[in-house]
Amino acid sequence: MITAELGKDGIVAVVVKLNEGRGARKRASLDKMSALTARDLARVNKVIVARMDSPVALIPQLAGHIVAAGGKRLRPTLTLASAQLCGYSGDRHIALAACVEFIHTATLLHDDVVDESDLRRGLATANSVWGNQASVLVGDFLFARAFKLMVEDGSLRVLDILSSASAVIAEGEVAQLTTANDTETSETAYLEVITGKTATLFAAACRIGAVIAERPRIQEEALDNYGLNLGIAFQLVDDALDYSASSASRSGTISARARSPCPSCSPIAAARRRSASSGAARWRIWSSTTAIWKRPLAC
Amino acid sequence: MITAELGKDGIVAVVVKLNEGRGARKRASLDKMSALTARDLARVNKVIVARMDSPVALIPQLAGHIVAAGGKRLRPTLTLASAQLCGYSGDRHIALAACVEFIHTATLLHDDVVDESDLRRGLATANSVWGNQASVLVGDFLFARAFKLMVEDGSLRVLDILSSASAVIAEGEVAQLTTANDTETSETAYLEVITGKTATLFAAACRIGAVIAERPRIQEEALDNYGLNLGIAFQLVDDALDYSASSASRSGTISARARSPCPSCSPIAAARRRSASSGAARWRIWSSTTAIWKRPLAC
Repeated sequence: MITAELGKDGIVAVVVKLNEGRGARKRASLDKMSALTARDLARVNKVIVARMDSPVALIPQLAGHIVAAGGKRLRPTLTLASAQLCGYSGDRHIALAACVEFIHTATLLHDDVVDESDLRRGLATANSVWGNQASVLVGDFLFARAFKLMVEDGSLRVLDILSSASAVIAEGEVAQLTTANDTETSETAYLEVITGKTATLFAAACRIGAVIAERPRIQEEALDNYGLNLGIAFQLVDDALDYSASSASRSGTISARARSPCPSCSPIAAARRRSASSGAARWRIWSSTTAIWKRPLAC
Repeated sequence: MITAELGKDGIVAVVVKLNEGRGARKRASLDKMSALTARDLARVNKVIVARMDSPVALIPQLAGHIVAAGGKRLRPTLTLASAQLCGYSGDRHIALAACVEFIHTATLLHDDVVDESDLRRGLATANSVWGNQASVLVGDFLFARAFKLMVEDGSLRVLDILSSASAVIAEGEVAQLTTANDTETSETAYLEVITGKTATLFAAACRIGAVIAERPRIQEEALDNYGLNLGIAFQLVDDALDYSASSASRSGTISARARSPCPSCSPIAAARRRSASSGAARWRIWSSTTAIWKRPLAC
């Protein structure tokens, strides 16, 4: 299991054997990191509310729906935690964390159109309430607003990191479209998809903390790498739950995929079946990382 | 009629009386500007093709479809012409013009999803061939790629202009959604919508030329103003044609609006009816500007 150890100089992430905490029934949790970043996150939320405002009433209305739906604010929390870990003492991490959340929210809005989802975190998705058109366009607005926030921050490095990440996220989403119903999707292709569509933003969110703290490139890379692996683990669990859980028992989207009559057609299941003979050991490693944020893989 | 006079020092745009050219059957045309920018535009097209590439095959395939469909490349041409008008002699206008076209193309892809359009410029729209999902996501990719190009250019001013413009475009598109089927839409609201969704990018495309040529702010403003008015005129004609023309006779989208059983329900027609008593003179002024790019308003 990978866990974050914040505040200890030079230590970014610790790899812990999965069975280490089992005796003590120690559960992986975000509580420690959330407590460390709670005050900053309250400031981030204020920036989010202020900057999603627009004279076009439908924009704050729809964006407010998805932002208020909450979620874990995991990505901006990573930016805050990473800045703190790197000893950053300014204010830039607040607006940049908001900007990371805007990119994520824009992606969610477009995802729901793509997935034709009706529910997210137990609430009606924006597209099911206001229609696909509004979701697409408000997503565009939030994406543009994210770049406006970055421009105000004034760092071309940060702009580079997040514009590159945004292109990779879209690439990952398109790649997912082309592999979605393909039971022959390979393990490599599947990992590429989730790295692109999810882990890239986790990595960028973490890296930004080191950039604004002006830490050496090697520490930037370490935080990027931590975020990347965390994002892969997160998406593995999310996909597994997507195929196994009901709307009452989980926090993500009930998508068209989840309503599929054939849960075993999931790319995870298919890839695991195929890897049973050739790559079982490797899959055990991937599966074990999934214990970080949620319950272990059910399938 | 407004027409561009390029190359004459200090002169940005000339207002010509509409009936001036009538005797000689002089038609408004882009030919002069296209000839002046043709060589640069060929370079822009190369950048467009190179930078819409991706290992995810569907991206260049779909983006290529809409980019190859052509159109007038009006917005990047404005950036090239404006840079030339301002005496700019470097290379930055090429990538920035490509970037303007990427933002426009991303908007088109999302527009077609919003309009549920089947045809654009006489060709099948991307969403009718590859589905809404692919159009949304490839649009996101192009938008992110546009910002990446701007970051490579390295000017925070340009980034500011285009990120602000992108947010205003999205605002205009959302505003249009909320007024689309409202026959009570006022002239003011209608002009606000088309200013946001169309004219803002025309304005930004023109302003960039002055920015990279490091011209004084007053010249930037003049070019911005020229682009803005040109964009308003352009959209007025486009909307008028949208309600009156067949797919064979025009170059834009045949949208759900055009298939409306009630062309006189158009916001233009409704606003003109209402303004007949109170503001006919003003509408004549707006209508007269529409002769710039296409044939005069039919309705």
